[in-house]
Amino acid sequence: MHDAPLDRFYSVIPAGGIGSRLWPLSRADAPKFLHDLTGSGHTLLRDTWNRLVPLAGDQRVMVVTGRAHRAAVEAQLPELADANVVLESEPRDSSAAIGLAAAILERREPGVIIGSFAADHVISGSELFRAAVVEAIAAADAGFIATIGITPTEPAVGFGYIHTGDELGVTDAPSALAVRSFVEKPDLETARDYVESGTYLWNAGMFIARADRLLEELASTQPELHAGLLELAEAWDDPALRGPAVDRIWPTLTKIAIDYSVAEPAAARGRLAVIPGRFVWDDVGDFASLAKLNSAGRASDLAILGENARVLSDASSGIVVSRSNRVISLIGVQDIVVVDTPDALLVTTSAHAQRVKAVVDALRLGGSSDVL
Amino acid sequence: MHDAPLDRFYSVIPAGGIGSRLWPLSRADAPKFLHDLTGSGHTLLRDTWNRLVPLAGDQRVMVVTGRAHRAAVEAQLPELADANVVLESEPRDSSAAIGLAAAILERREPGVIIGSFAADHVISGSELFRAAVVEAIAAADAGFIATIGITPTEPAVGFGYIHTGDELGVTDAPSALAVRSFVEKPDLETARDYVESGTYLWNAGMFIARADRLLEELASTQPELHAGLLELAEAWDDPALRGPAVDRIWPTLTKIAIDYSVAEPAAARGRLAVIPGRFVWDDVGDFASLAKLNSAGRASDLAILGENARVLSDASSGIVVSRSNRVISLIGVQDIVVVDTPDALLVTTSAHAQRVKAVVDALRLGGSSDVL
Repeated sequence: MHDAPLDRFYSVIPAGGIGSRLWPLSRADAPKFLHDLTGSGHTLLRDTWNRLVPLAGDQRVMVVTGRAHRAAVEAQLPELADANVVLESEPRDSSAAIGLAAAILERREPGVIIGSFAADHVISGSELFRAAVVEAIAAADAGFIATIGITPTEPAVGFGYIHTGDELGVTDAPSALAVRSFVEKPDLETARDYVESGTYLWNAGMFIARADRLLEELASTQPELHAGLLELAEAWDDPALRGPAVDRIWPTLTKIAIDYSVAEPAAARGRLAVIPGRFVWDDVGDFASLAKLNSAGRASDLAILGENARVLSDASSGIVVSRSNRVISLIGVQDIVVVDTPDALLVTTSAHAQRVKAVVDALRLGGSSDVL
Repeated sequence: MHDAPLDRFYSVIPAGGIGSRLWPLSRADAPKFLHDLTGSGHTLLRDTWNRLVPLAGDQRVMVVTGRAHRAAVEAQLPELADANVVLESEPRDSSAAIGLAAAILERREPGVIIGSFAADHVISGSELFRAAVVEAIAAADAGFIATIGITPTEPAVGFGYIHTGDELGVTDAPSALAVRSFVEKPDLETARDYVESGTYLWNAGMFIARADRLLEELASTQPELHAGLLELAEAWDDPALRGPAVDRIWPTLTKIAIDYSVAEPAAARGRLAVIPGRFVWDDVGDFASLAKLNSAGRASDLAILGENARVLSDASSGIVVSRSNRVISLIGVQDIVVVDTPDALLVTTSAHAQRVKAVVDALRLGGSSDVL
């Protein structure tokens, strides 16, 4: 007989993406998850950790990150056990990252239930968050791939949505609903329809599942990737074998988001459950989102981020992110986005915040990788 | 009998104002005249010098500047003779600066004709400029206080205007006109009327006069200031006397613009002559003016100033002044003004460029004088 589901729970934090739309704040050497984007005094990674530790303790949180970020991650999370650090030699997308964690943990602890939560999202309402996770764990224990969908508070066009179905009637997961489908970022009109219908949730990219179930899904949709991950996991806890296995296998792993390799196929077969979450969530996808998050929704305000910010604003609104100690003066600029770092400056408006990624691409092509 | 008027001519360059509306480019320790604002490769001061030297040679140009700027001025003008440097212990406005130069030069060389030209204006068309000065010198020789007014090319609201009167019929100054009055910066409608009338010129603040005539005007409107200047001039060329005289007299001098102490009173008495100048002139009073000057009038362009500028613009217009070697990215911002310096950043729009001075005042009051 298994332990109670929560005792078998293990959090996994994939800490990978740079967050290119938050350049020049986010960089290859200072990705989004290493920033304090809310003025909490903590990086997003540390906030994520703090939110997860009460679920199963600080020895049951695994972080999957790039080799380059190891020192920064360990500085943020001094409690993190060595065995819980999984280093990627290069990014191979979320199926590889989460799948490897699942394979390693399943080997160490058959029957383990894992929950994967991005290192760079913002949540307020940790109690509500954990209550939703506990329900998701129950759904996972019942064999579902579970996710947590956020009850929309507005017709956001920057998020994907989950179209929910009937109640599943899972023991200890009374809110669990079936998932009809995942839908991509909608236009505004469609988003309005979604919100009005009451049957759509924001896809927050949280997945909770028995590791063996998750690997089973992967095996059916991505057999090569699955085989590679099992081989890696087998070598992982042997110091003599891990290095050669990583060098040999990691670069060959298929790059695919776990949404496509696991979640959507599971949904199509009725094996996905969603727990609606009523906590406040944001993936802080761009500076418009960051501005909103830091201005308490007051559009006329100027949000200022940065401990040592010296900002003088005359009739201006938007957001200033200060990572230098320079004096920043704004006069008569509305919805402005100013991101001031020692080697790069961005000036745009909320309306164009999504185009930041294109600038990053242009800088890379133009030989300015020194500031990326 | 006197020498020919041009042989008695001496240029005076008051190099004083910081140019607060160009902060954070212009600073107390890097005033406007020490910047290259046109991409000419020279500072405005050096351009002014180069424009004046052909008139009477490099030994007949006097510079009046602050003690703090002595080294910078001498670095810009290595040809400048020691006797031609007049240092102000503190700014006392243009009547004191130009009046002292007049008094010193009149003592050294009775009958001298001086021409005062700001160190921080932009002119293109040096030949036309000098032709106008030569006419102004003739008018000055005939006893007038002469000025050069710029034929307006548009209804500018950022300049004062000169309302011209009849032809004066001065020998060797065929364009010389009487001056009916000086008028302050107009509103747009008034400016349009001025330009249409054909009888208004921009006041470029250039004054050409016999030094004794200029001092006579000062004596009648500002007798105390005049007396102080004569006393200073008497001590000036005696190394033992200059220091004590400056310490005693300079701080007591009335602060008043030469427009009010000399030009307007002379105009009221019919003693002012104006030579219309058809060269391109700008006082580069703010960043809107600087943007225009550097974009050849194409409103959709982004003007970029700065030798080492690394600017990436996506659908943006306005001006970027780069005094750091940071990468500056602009996305979708129109008529923007971005001024990037190592310790201060300004973001505004052309429409608000005049308000920069208020920011400087606010920074001073707010204890941020370190960046002024």
